Amino acid sequence: MTSEAITVLGLGNLGRALAEAFLREGHPVTVWNRSATKASELKVPGAVVAGTAAEAVAASGLVIVAVLDHQAAQQVLSGVDVRGRALVNITSGTPDEARELADWAAANGAEYLHGAVYAVPQTIGTDASSIIYSGSSAVHERWQKQLALLGKVTFLGADAGRASGYDVAILAGMYGLIGGFLHAAALARANGIKTTELTPMLLSWLTDLHPALSTFAAEIDGESYDNAESSLAMNQTGLGMLIRAAAAQGVPFAALDSFKELVDQQVDAGRGEESLARAVESLGVVSHRFAG
Amino acid sequence: MTSEAITVLGLGNLGRALAEAFLREGHPVTVWNRSATKASELKVPGAVVAGTAAEAVAASGLVIVAVLDHQAAQQVLSGVDVRGRALVNITSGTPDEARELADWAAANGAEYLHGAVYAVPQTIGTDASSIIYSGSSAVHERWQKQLALLGKVTFLGADAGRASGYDVAILAGMYGLIGGFLHAAALARANGIKTTELTPMLLSWLTDLHPALSTFAAEIDGESYDNAESSLAMNQTGLGMLIRAAAAQGVPFAALDSFKELVDQQVDAGRGEESLARAVESLGVVSHRFAG
Repeated sequence: MTSEAITVLGLGNLGRALAEAFLREGHPVTVWNRSATKASELKVPGAVVAGTAAEAVAASGLVIVAVLDHQAAQQVLSGVDVRGRALVNITSGTPDEARELADWAAANGAEYLHGAVYAVPQTIGTDASSIIYSGSSAVHERWQKQLALLGKVTFLGADAGRASGYDVAILAGMYGLIGGFLHAAALARANGIKTTELTPMLLSWLTDLHPALSTFAAEIDGESYDNAESSLAMNQTGLGMLIRAAAAQGVPFAALDSFKELVDQQVDAGRGEESLARAVESLGVVSHRFAG
Repeated sequence: MTSEAITVLGLGNLGRALAEAFLREGHPVTVWNRSATKASELKVPGAVVAGTAAEAVAASGLVIVAVLDHQAAQQVLSGVDVRGRALVNITSGTPDEARELADWAAANGAEYLHGAVYAVPQTIGTDASSIIYSGSSAVHERWQKQLALLGKVTFLGADAGRASGYDVAILAGMYGLIGGFLHAAALARANGIKTTELTPMLLSWLTDLHPALSTFAAEIDGESYDNAESSLAMNQTGLGMLIRAAAAQGVPFAALDSFKELVDQQVDAGRGEESLARAVESLGVVSHRFAG
């Protein structure tokens, strides 16, 4: 019994880790990378390195696309015969970009599944990584076992853009966390405190906040912000103090001002005693009513 | 044997929870609040409500100050005879504000300890809350047992500003997390995804990122950013995509642009292949060399 051939387009950290995970399970793997130099540098032991994207796509029924961005994904696939292929694109992009590629795939005789991977390269192929997909349920079912090699799979339905909808939201949360962390490090340093000294205390407190964020989530879904443990007015004061402190220490970060503007808008509208979660209503007040 | 009397100035969520924790342990507690109306509304069963801040301070050897901000703390203490008192101020503020109050206390015959509390009111008085202090080690030692009632205590040394140095850093991390979370919620909503549906997946991924943040911390302390699992260039692309997606969905958030500027500055300086942690160097490049 022969294992199914799999192609991986793109040999960044993620593509390489995926190719290795498939090889470990005995799949014949063909790889290709835009930059030929890079392909030889990053040669994956045991994989066939294709000369062109078209050759790589021709080699396998399942084609994973893991490149830098949507534009790169379009360029890689442009002019390539994808008939009969299952295209699984795990390149980060917007929901509309995913839908655009799904339409292109349909017009060119391929099935399309869009995914987002939550893993560091070391955890690919283990339960510590997690992958969300949406799009072709046929691809999801046919290649279930292979996709499961990459991590815990969640299938979010037929809309190829839905996984990206989750993904952009999760990335926004991630960049908030990382931006706040880097600012914390700068403030610590300005006060002669090592970041490694601060970090355990900081991460422990951030974890303690998770239940409060779950409460915010319920408030946001219910658009009901009355029971405020953490009020907008109180946080307006806290943000003001923090902005002042950061400026005084020579490490201002405008992200805080942007957050405070969301809060100010709600306080100015007379909502100061309501929950901080209401600040979400300052973001795109109008547009969301027409979405979803 | 009589338990020591304790005074709590300020009856917000935190002050009230502190007063209740002391009462539970059998301490006579005197409370006072700036707004008299509020004091009667928020009367803590079992506590004596003082008519003035001066009366409240006169009642106890240990005086906890838990008011809105530094200005409020100054106003509350202004003109009050604090001789012989142990002042424990857990009002959020900048390191310099804490040092200013410590100097004022010394000039007025009181000992001063500055603290920051990491707890929701429900967890005050349990090990789930955590308190950091710096300033008078005499107060820390003399009132150790009472302070421990409020949560796990960490004493950070004699500089009254040090606890605030930690605190502003921790608050910066906290507001990054919360701001990112609210933006994530807005993006999810724009895509017809419930925030309660998104949150478990988001929080799980944010927790998975903690080891990467600890790696960043070590890179920042060592000012060594060569081994990039997550490069500046890769994140510049990711942030660009996210900013574009958020704008397209009608929920732009300028905090992301501020973060991207930090990254851009490093990439422009030819550091694109180095670690994202290097973005910290875009914050207050000059000033930190003179601090600490």
